[in-house]
Amino acid sequence: MTMRRDTPARKYAVILGNLGNTRDRFCSAYKQNPSTLEMLDRAAAIPLVTGIELVGTWDIRPDNLVEMRSALRGHGLACVSIIPDLFSNPVFARGSYCSNNAAVRRQAIDYTRSMCDIAMELECPLMNLWPGQDGYDYLLCSDYELETGWIVDALTEVAGAYPNLQFALEYKCKEPRTHSYLARMADTLLTARATGLPNVGVTIDTGHAFMANEVVGEAIVLAKRADNRLLHMHFNDNHATTDDDMIVGSVHTVAYLEMLYWLDRCGYGGWLSMDQYPYREDAAGAIGESIQWLSRFSELLDEHRSTIDGLVAAQNPVATSAFLRSVLLG
Amino acid sequence: MTMRRDTPARKYAVILGNLGNTRDRFCSAYKQNPSTLEMLDRAAAIPLVTGIELVGTWDIRPDNLVEMRSALRGHGLACVSIIPDLFSNPVFARGSYCSNNAAVRRQAIDYTRSMCDIAMELECPLMNLWPGQDGYDYLLCSDYELETGWIVDALTEVAGAYPNLQFALEYKCKEPRTHSYLARMADTLLTARATGLPNVGVTIDTGHAFMANEVVGEAIVLAKRADNRLLHMHFNDNHATTDDDMIVGSVHTVAYLEMLYWLDRCGYGGWLSMDQYPYREDAAGAIGESIQWLSRFSELLDEHRSTIDGLVAAQNPVATSAFLRSVLLG
Amino acid sequence: MTMRRDTPARKYAVILGNLGNTRDRFCSAYKQNPSTLEMLDRAAAIPLVTGIELVGTWDIRPDNLVEMRSALRGHGLACVSIIPDLFSNPVFARGSYCSNNAAVRRQAIDYTRSMCDIAMELECPLMNLWPGQDGYDYLLCSDYELETGWIVDALTEVAGAYPNLQFALEYKCKEPRTHSYLARMADTLLTARATGLPNVGVTIDTGHAFMANEVVGEAIVLAKRADNRLLHMHFNDNHATTDDDMIVGSVHTVAYLEMLYWLDRCGYGGWLSMDQYPYREDAAGAIGESIQWLSRFSELLDEHRSTIDGLVAAQNPVATSAFLRSVLLG
Amino acid sequence: MTMRRDTPARKYAVILGNLGNTRDRFCSAYKQNPSTLEMLDRAAAIPLVTGIELVGTWDIRPDNLVEMRSALRGHGLACVSIIPDLFSNPVFARGSYCSNNAAVRRQAIDYTRSMCDIAMELECPLMNLWPGQDGYDYLLCSDYELETGWIVDALTEVAGAYPNLQFALEYKCKEPRTHSYLARMADTLLTARATGLPNVGVTIDTGHAFMANEVVGEAIVLAKRADNRLLHMHFNDNHATTDDDMIVGSVHTVAYLEMLYWLDRCGYGGWLSMDQYPYREDAAGAIGESIQWLSRFSELLDEHRSTIDGLVAAQNPVATSAFLRSVLLG
Repeated sequence: MTMRRDTPARKYAVILGNLGNTRDRFCSAYKQNPSTLEMLDRAAAIPLVTGIELVGTWDIRPDNLVEMRSALRGHGLACVSIIPDLFSNPVFARGSYCSNNAAVRRQAIDYTRSMCDIAMELECPLMNLWPGQDGYDYLLCSDYELETGWIVDALTEVAGAYPNLQFALEYKCKEPRTHSYLARMADTLLTARATGLPNVGVTIDTGHAFMANEVVGEAIVLAKRADNRLLHMHFNDNHATTDDDMIVGSVHTVAYLEMLYWLDRCGYGGWLSMDQYPYREDAAGAIGESIQWLSRFSELLDEHRSTIDGLVAAQNPVATSAFLRSVLLG
Repeated sequence: MTMRRDTPARKYAVILGNLGNTRDRFCSAYKQNPSTLEMLDRAAAIPLVTGIELVGTWDIRPDNLVEMRSALRGHGLACVSIIPDLFSNPVFARGSYCSNNAAVRRQAIDYTRSMCDIAMELECPLMNLWPGQDGYDYLLCSDYELETGWIVDALTEVAGAYPNLQFALEYKCKEPRTHSYLARMADTLLTARATGLPNVGVTIDTGHAFMANEVVGEAIVLAKRADNRLLHMHFNDNHATTDDDMIVGSVHTVAYLEMLYWLDRCGYGGWLSMDQYPYREDAAGAIGESIQWLSRFSELLDEHRSTIDGLVAAQNPVATSAFLRSVLLG
Repeated sequence: MTMRRDTPARKYAVILGNLGNTRDRFCSAYKQNPSTLEMLDRAAAIPLVTGIELVGTWDIRPDNLVEMRSALRGHGLACVSIIPDLFSNPVFARGSYCSNNAAVRRQAIDYTRSMCDIAMELECPLMNLWPGQDGYDYLLCSDYELETGWIVDALTEVAGAYPNLQFALEYKCKEPRTHSYLARMADTLLTARATGLPNVGVTIDTGHAFMANEVVGEAIVLAKRADNRLLHMHFNDNHATTDDDMIVGSVHTVAYLEMLYWLDRCGYGGWLSMDQYPYREDAAGAIGESIQWLSRFSELLDEHRSTIDGLVAAQNPVATSAFLRSVLLG
Repeated sequence: MTMRRDTPARKYAVILGNLGNTRDRFCSAYKQNPSTLEMLDRAAAIPLVTGIELVGTWDIRPDNLVEMRSALRGHGLACVSIIPDLFSNPVFARGSYCSNNAAVRRQAIDYTRSMCDIAMELECPLMNLWPGQDGYDYLLCSDYELETGWIVDALTEVAGAYPNLQFALEYKCKEPRTHSYLARMADTLLTARATGLPNVGVTIDTGHAFMANEVVGEAIVLAKRADNRLLHMHFNDNHATTDDDMIVGSVHTVAYLEMLYWLDRCGYGGWLSMDQYPYREDAAGAIGESIQWLSRFSELLDEHRSTIDGLVAAQNPVATSAFLRSVLLG
């Protein structure tokens, strides 16, 4: 075990669509939908943001690739990841990579490859794959064995074809399906390993972890122990039962300090990207708040890292409580 | 305590919109949206359906009142309830009856009254009120005291103005807000009583109860003990953490038998209405299945009612298990 | 609405048994069990503690009444409440006040009355009633209607006989039963009101509220709206699914600041009593930590009360986030 | 994919201690504790039971090995597994295999080895390892990296030393710790694989899966895909939030039919062992009920297996619902 002592340089990013319209099944538009370029302007204006994630088709397509590359450069923003849209097209309603229709699986794979091509053009190093429709709702209505096999097949084909890209699988236990196949850190690591490829890993969305009753710090360690497969981080907060996609620090406090500690302990060097869904809030304000919380937690961590090393080793909740109280309540 | 011995005549209904498009925040249209009259044709064709619930504005408005009345009569269907649309209009995004903007509260109340007028015209006896946006998401962002007071004020005004209509408050602990003010049976009974009016009561949505960790049988008894305020029933099933709005019997089995038993024990004479959201399924098929499950559970209950009376008194889980096993597995 | 502006004087207490042995169904003794008087010495030594809650039979009985009164006086400690032991005696395994055996109900009532007599002798103003075995585990094994009626009957008899004592019903949704009758704030208020007596109210245990997905601030307001029935507070923390009985501030942070705000807004003048179960920790240290967190939260609240008044009215999560961040992270 | 077509011969077992005393942290004895041999008599009398699981130290020790072997033979019962007691001894309160005290880890390993020796003597083929204290409660109080490494080290040493025994790791997400390291199927598979040994696999406890929001059918497939590592099955039911250890079929119905289907599809040939905790019920009756439910579910599965094959392939919840309705409600 080697502990990192030096402060990592945190890199903050945002998923572009977070700045757009929000809706749910009851209300189709809580907000007006700005154009992609307007959203980019707003994202660029958020303090500390230097990277952007683009959702395939919505934000980035062959027809706007040149324009987007230019706009990103104009703002001095890196394209951190591309997230293929495997969720909004009803052709994928019963599954994309795991569809029991071979033609749909092929469509999902070919679409993902087309997005990989765009990533290569944009010099974007990472594909964030969230196959949100790949799961099931009802018992005795799915062939778990065949379907999970098809997911591995699809990932193996795509990641094998783009060895210079990293493929980060974003897990989430439910929504839009009642059960997703990529549900939690450990099953997603099993899937990543089943590809036999070194460029397949995992994205932790902190809210997805909370709703799965995972402790993010432990999930980070799991990924490290499974060949160092933590590739990407999405940040938000929630009330631990639903993917509320709220401002960091709204519900959880100590958990963020702990997860930053373990990111450093495990040598994570990737982006801290905001993935929120500010239904009723000013989007840039809500995203900017999250980054400010994380930035300040990072500073506190730098200041107290060796103390925390000791607390983690000591297993004394009373001592940890006294430390946290002094840090948080002054 | 007087136990009902005679079989109640079950009356089955459906919320019309259940037969329309389905969507979530990721996919705006899993299905094509049929017209209101097409949905009515499909609903009428579902075996045992004799009642319809209409969502205000979507299904019923001043401009189509005559047409709808005629269409319902043509199918021999009763209008069981009207559900004012307090959830899809973004003006209500931060609350309808509980908005901290008095003009928005007025708009919500006046809109509800306009729907009450339509109910009177349609000889519909019951308003099913689901103020889904009346709640909150973030801590330290809401004045619980003022807002819950405003809800009571609004209900008192509306229900006071229409003493010949029944007002059934549908509770749900979350979605679209992370926390709703009308969250569970008991707090909704407190709200109903706070109006001081006899025509304000409660709707149980079985899935809402499951996701709040309520036992529906106990919730039915709570409503009886609070001046017999159970006015309406919505049926569906879920995996107990989210409002999945699935087919009855998909997840829970024993719970439905128990709740029908307690509906009878407590003298419920209202409708059994299906409230599903078949995202990816054939809607009429999914709704029809729920009714068939309930109809068959009712027959089993009639057959075994006195045995169940004895089991409920005996408090012997081994005996209850043997009974359920013989009924369910033969 | 009248808002309290002046700082309340917080009064801190502890349940004596928190300083004793801990166990679970797997391990019968994580710790040695000190004597009652040793526990009292330890409790008295925790900074800011000025009150003690005694569990009936375990800590206080007719035979040690004189000794305990003297010991409490010796330490300058008030007896804040007595908690009758309705949970450890297997005669109550299937219910105490709600047992379907009339003799067991009588035993539960008479035992409670004997503890009320002791309270009168000790000049203890409040009985904290937690009928933990009053609930059920299996469906179709309980008569919810009769049993909830028996609970009201028992409470009416006891509280009617001791009009000078306050009776605070402590709710908890599960454990030791899978479902308790006094489960959440709202149903407990209905039960309290059903007695028709003014001296029956509610105890909030913050961890019980968390595990029931209640927001404590809202629960406090519910109690105020129901005739000001919040009588007592138990403090601890948990991971929101089980009654972990941990140190305040271990998991939740913002929630405590909010609940203290609403306690003041609603005019709560009672005790803040620690109810923890430090399975593996130094008990006095763990309890003392909770009090220190609450004491410091109180100071922060005093400092920022008018700001919080404004945030609660403004409904702007971005502004609330910025405030909380500045307070917690400096 | 090869589907099993022939009916497996189900083998039913019971954990001996299920027939003994029950307790929780509130009540130390809901029942009298019979002797080990009395419990064995009662277990042997439960219809269809042909195997027994013994808890180390409680049921089986060097000093009673000869007596137990003789008693088991006398009843014609197989010793299905030995479960070392890693949970009741307070020396393991902060962890057994993962203790941060090397001497405690050594004690846990040596104790497990002593139980393996007994298993060899009893011709018991399987060790069921549930290191229930191996986890954590508080954030920033545990070194997840070191501790999970120590668990792998311990398992590697023990399983490596007994290549003729199978080691089935029983996962459970919480209790007695708020978080266990062996929490769910997938992380336990990662741990098993990390040993590099073929004789380390997993036990599914159906209630542990329910409380972790796992679908057992999917968990069975996960284990198959990870080198066929499902070694053992424990059966019970619960309300999906706590380890209630109830009678099979009390809450869930369809889930059991599905899991038996997938056990067969994945070629499981092991025991179906009952692991209940009948706090207030007749133990032999409660356990016997579970076996009767499973036996009858097995018969229904045999009768309808090809229909279910078709439903699982068809992904049509309406068709599955109609099938289940006809099977369960007749």
